[in-house]
Amino acid sequence: MDMLQMGQAILATQPFSKLLGATLSKFDAESTELRIAITDDLKQQHGFIHGGVLSYAADNALTYAGGAALVGAVVTSEYKINYVRPAIGQEIIARAWVVYAGKSQATCRCDVFVVNDGKESLCAIAQGTIAKLPSTTSAPSNE
Amino acid sequence: MDMLQMGQAILATQPFSKLLGATLSKFDAESTELRIAITDDLKQQHGFIHGGVLSYAADNALTYAGGAALVGAVVTSEYKINYVRPAIGQEIIARAWVVYAGKSQATCRCDVFVVNDGKESLCAIAQGTIAKLPSTTSAPSNE
Amino acid sequence: MDMLQMGQAILATQPFSKLLGATLSKFDAESTELRIAITDDLKQQHGFIHGGVLSYAADNALTYAGGAALVGAVVTSEYKINYVRPAIGQEIIARAWVVYAGKSQATCRCDVFVVNDGKESLCAIAQGTIAKLPSTTSAPSNE
Amino acid sequence: MDMLQMGQAILATQPFSKLLGATLSKFDAESTELRIAITDDLKQQHGFIHGGVLSYAADNALTYAGGAALVGAVVTSEYKINYVRPAIGQEIIARAWVVYAGKSQATCRCDVFVVNDGKESLCAIAQGTIAKLPSTTSAPSNE
Repeated sequence: MDMLQMGQAILATQPFSKLLGATLSKFDAESTELRIAITDDLKQQHGFIHGGVLSYAADNALTYAGGAALVGAVVTSEYKINYVRPAIGQEIIARAWVVYAGKSQATCRCDVFVVNDGKESLCAIAQGTIAKLPSTTSAPSNE
Repeated sequence: MDMLQMGQAILATQPFSKLLGATLSKFDAESTELRIAITDDLKQQHGFIHGGVLSYAADNALTYAGGAALVGAVVTSEYKINYVRPAIGQEIIARAWVVYAGKSQATCRCDVFVVNDGKESLCAIAQGTIAKLPSTTSAPSNE
Repeated sequence: MDMLQMGQAILATQPFSKLLGATLSKFDAESTELRIAITDDLKQQHGFIHGGVLSYAADNALTYAGGAALVGAVVTSEYKINYVRPAIGQEIIARAWVVYAGKSQATCRCDVFVVNDGKESLCAIAQGTIAKLPSTTSAPSNE
Repeated sequence: MDMLQMGQAILATQPFSKLLGATLSKFDAESTELRIAITDDLKQQHGFIHGGVLSYAADNALTYAGGAALVGAVVTSEYKINYVRPAIGQEIIARAWVVYAGKSQATCRCDVFVVNDGKESLCAIAQGTIAKLPSTTSAPSNE
């Protein structure tokens, strides 16, 4: 089982990720790509994708990116997100990568794009810390 | 209709807030309290409440708190969250308040608690900026 | 030597803190108070106190607050600051406190006030993570 | 006078930037590069460059980057910084760029490097919001 398959298997065990319909389309040492097909359930009252969905996507993508670098079960310790544009579209793509990884934690960044009629637009950016859980042997585990 | 009822009415129009089962238990000029009854759908693979749920709660509570101060439709511009403890329990309570409000934006803080067997524990803290949308006349509107 | 004296002794060994004229007016398990008397050197071109001075004050106060909880040498891992009001005055007071402390890191908050003609006004708020340095025996050590 | 010269002229009017010895080595629409030659005054007690210096550099570089995009006087509204490695060296280089710019604010990122014996190492990363000041006609103005 390659790294992407392993990541997908882990995502499949997260009830909240399933509720939101998140899928992992890329997962390797260089970067992580998490996607969400947008349904009406994921919107706010004006038809935009809810910020909570973008936050979830950024947070989870950051955790995967950090997990690829740290090896073992990890959690997001903290992150910050800036919403830069109202998110209108059919899909969300969160792309995260490691900027620096030490032994016990990794500092990562994430760009969140919204895809509308096939065109990607940046809608949020994030930065955060992913921490390795003590004495664990299992695979990356988004909080 | 008082302020809390107005806030609840707005929350009821947010599909994503409904999907997560969020309710507004307090909403006035001093503070906002948003609650989520935890179901299995809101967890990650180890049985903890997913970070994305805590992020949603913090983000939305921050928006309400800012909206109470700014009057009019508002969005979260940016925020930062620190997860301080694994969230295990039956309910999440996000309490947010305004630290400083200008004319067009408010800086707010939020504490997120998890309730387990009736006991509240802090599980995350957040800080962010809520911005007023230009030329709007409606009530607070979480992104 | 009590805790405040110990903190002051450490601050006195930091060349950058001396350059800025920082003093520690409170340092105990509950809170930390760091002050800076404002000179023209600490301003930007419009006569306001430079944001870098507020950032330094928030960062260092957060580190002290975390150090009081963690015991041992600590550093600021990350923090976020919101400037809420232009800082005009004769003194800066950064008040920091621990929100949650584990074994290896503490999550802290800080309020930064500017004192103008004897009146305190909030000018910035911060939130961050303070981490214990591995295998150290000395006292709190702001990065 | 080109853009870099204009930026340098503004930096020269900031007393705090002069106190720290900051210089602007690049300033155009694509990116900003701010440098600080490290003296003992800019260190903490263990000989590392003080975090407050890295924060100042990130904050000021972010403001310049945002200023280049927004045109007019700007301030940093908020930012977040992660220190990723102890900063030991002779020079600091903060490189900032705009990720998204609207009419009244820009979201920017910054990488801070330390140069030790000619070798650059990343020591901090930042992300923040730069806001245009209302009705101003002058050039970029770091808070």
